Amino acid sequence: MSVDDYLHGLRDRDWEELEEGTLRLAMVGLGWWTREQTIPATEDSKFCETTVLVSSSREKGEEVAADTESVAATLTYDEFVDGEAVDEYDAVYVCTPNAKHLPYAEAAAEHGKAVLCEKPMEATSERAEELVAATEDVPLMVAYRMQTDPQVRRMRELVANGAVGDPVLVHGHMGQRMLEFVSGSPDQWRLDPELAGYGASVMDLGVYPLNTARFVLDADPVSVTAQMRSEDEAFEKVPDQYATFTVQFDDGTYAACTASQNASLSGHLRIVGTEGELSLEHSYLGMSDQHLRYRTADGREIEIEDERSDVFGDEMIEELDYFADRVLRGEPFAADAEHGLLDMRTLAAIYEAAETGETVSVN
Amino acid sequence: MSVDDYLHGLRDRDWEELEEGTLRLAMVGLGWWTREQTIPATEDSKFCETTVLVSSSREKGEEVAADTESVAATLTYDEFVDGEAVDEYDAVYVCTPNAKHLPYAEAAAEHGKAVLCEKPMEATSERAEELVAATEDVPLMVAYRMQTDPQVRRMRELVANGAVGDPVLVHGHMGQRMLEFVSGSPDQWRLDPELAGYGASVMDLGVYPLNTARFVLDADPVSVTAQMRSEDEAFEKVPDQYATFTVQFDDGTYAACTASQNASLSGHLRIVGTEGELSLEHSYLGMSDQHLRYRTADGREIEIEDERSDVFGDEMIEELDYFADRVLRGEPFAADAEHGLLDMRTLAAIYEAAETGETVSVN
Repeated sequence: MSVDDYLHGLRDRDWEELEEGTLRLAMVGLGWWTREQTIPATEDSKFCETTVLVSSSREKGEEVAADTESVAATLTYDEFVDGEAVDEYDAVYVCTPNAKHLPYAEAAAEHGKAVLCEKPMEATSERAEELVAATEDVPLMVAYRMQTDPQVRRMRELVANGAVGDPVLVHGHMGQRMLEFVSGSPDQWRLDPELAGYGASVMDLGVYPLNTARFVLDADPVSVTAQMRSEDEAFEKVPDQYATFTVQFDDGTYAACTASQNASLSGHLRIVGTEGELSLEHSYLGMSDQHLRYRTADGREIEIEDERSDVFGDEMIEELDYFADRVLRGEPFAADAEHGLLDMRTLAAIYEAAETGETVSVN
Repeated sequence: MSVDDYLHGLRDRDWEELEEGTLRLAMVGLGWWTREQTIPATEDSKFCETTVLVSSSREKGEEVAADTESVAATLTYDEFVDGEAVDEYDAVYVCTPNAKHLPYAEAAAEHGKAVLCEKPMEATSERAEELVAATEDVPLMVAYRMQTDPQVRRMRELVANGAVGDPVLVHGHMGQRMLEFVSGSPDQWRLDPELAGYGASVMDLGVYPLNTARFVLDADPVSVTAQMRSEDEAFEKVPDQYATFTVQFDDGTYAACTASQNASLSGHLRIVGTEGELSLEHSYLGMSDQHLRYRTADGREIEIEDERSDVFGDEMIEELDYFADRVLRGEPFAADAEHGLLDMRTLAAIYEAAETGETVSVN
């Protein structure tokens, strides 16, 4: 394959095998992400359709339903748990506060439906184990949208093909000003340990560089260190208004990461190898200026342009179609239960490392 | 001042006050850095001159002297220590293996000469304390060339002026393939703890992002975590063929850093604030493509171009003239004894953190 063919094929799906089919989805949790990103992505997807909406507020559900032609039923959480309209959907997308993933994933499994669960999998490692146990009879995928981002897949491919020699060091960061965002109130669930789990920044944002590094390196965390602190009143119940952590992977690579819900909107992933470097910037944020750059061992810089105008939308379409491709063919996911659980154990270890001041092994 | 004036003034010296004068330097240690960078920089500098050469090999000294018109004397280390040709120089540049900084700085002080000592200050924190005690009667500066790099000074100025809001997170990295370099033999001093001190990568390379972050933030380290490992035979006597460490500064900012003597040649410094981001890339390496980029809170990217063709040379000229400006006017340095000692204590803490698996306070 020529370099030109390779670069022009950047956005080709290297995973798609399904020829035709439709996966009907129940959207559980109608926050802004589901409304603005996931439902529109199903409309533009090849294999997915939104047929059921589940929300605490019937009014919100009906409002969204009015804009979404494919919707066949609008349910409350209780109606969903009770099994109403089970014939109207094949799979469930869970996008609620972290600590609500377990009950709705469990209900989905009881109805025999496949589950696409947002990240992080649950509020704690123990609850994530319960979620995995409760869904063992249905397909379960964790919604890491970076894993089907075409640039991230090319990064992984380049690393696997030795483009940077042996990967040895990684940098990763994700930051945003959460309180200035849609639903950015200080009494939101992300600042409430009962609903969010261990914290606000590493749980919600740090998991992006952590998981994307795992995916790109094709390696798993073995030990972590961390420092974190909260300063402002809004963050007083969580330990990590600002956080930094290091991760050793099982291939020996070290990652140096940061995350903050009170930093300027930005994100990056950099893979430093013995013979080159790859960087993706600004990543995780759905920005149209997400650039993939390759620096060769002799210092040449090659930019691998991405001409997408809507990265969030594209990432969600890719993720949803990948999920459908696997569910409808009965094939396993890359981000399966075990994969997600290891991230939850790593997140737990990061918070433990910060609290104890010790390097913590990921078991 | 307009933005245009500001950007065009990028390379102006904001520290120069000396009107005229010449500082005559004895070059102690004639490795490639002294020969290829420092001596040529004195020739292009405004206030410095190389008048004495000190080397273990008289042949090497005479060879270099033949190419350097201003040289008045060529000495062995013993002759230098014994005080030969003391009237031919005003100050001493020490660029030897780390564990040789102490005896030659001490000798310089005995001769009443100012000392410009390469980084890191010595092999261990304790030896650095001895060096400081031994030189207390003469001016002592640590040779952090990034502190007089014009782009780094602008970064510091932008941070101080609130361009990124409050700085909250930092990323820093420096890597090179040491064994492929000039004098890159596996039995070199950087891999020998007797001469190098705690290790090879953090001591020699990691100190760049560490100190440059300190300088740009105008803040000091208070605690660190670290993970490091060596894999190849050449690195068996040092713990840090690959290393990652985190630093908390006294303003609360966290830095996530990496360093390796076995990584592709690259380096960066990134300051993430609450309202913007600054990045310098590739830094520390003397590359002509060292870019300073400013990302505003609303996502605009501004590149502050540097048109230097020889960053190493320029950095050394700036550093040497700054040193002369301060010595000849009898004024203190930014990178003085206390400043350098704190880095040595931080380096000691980083290696201790990796060895003990604990977060270590910098005292």
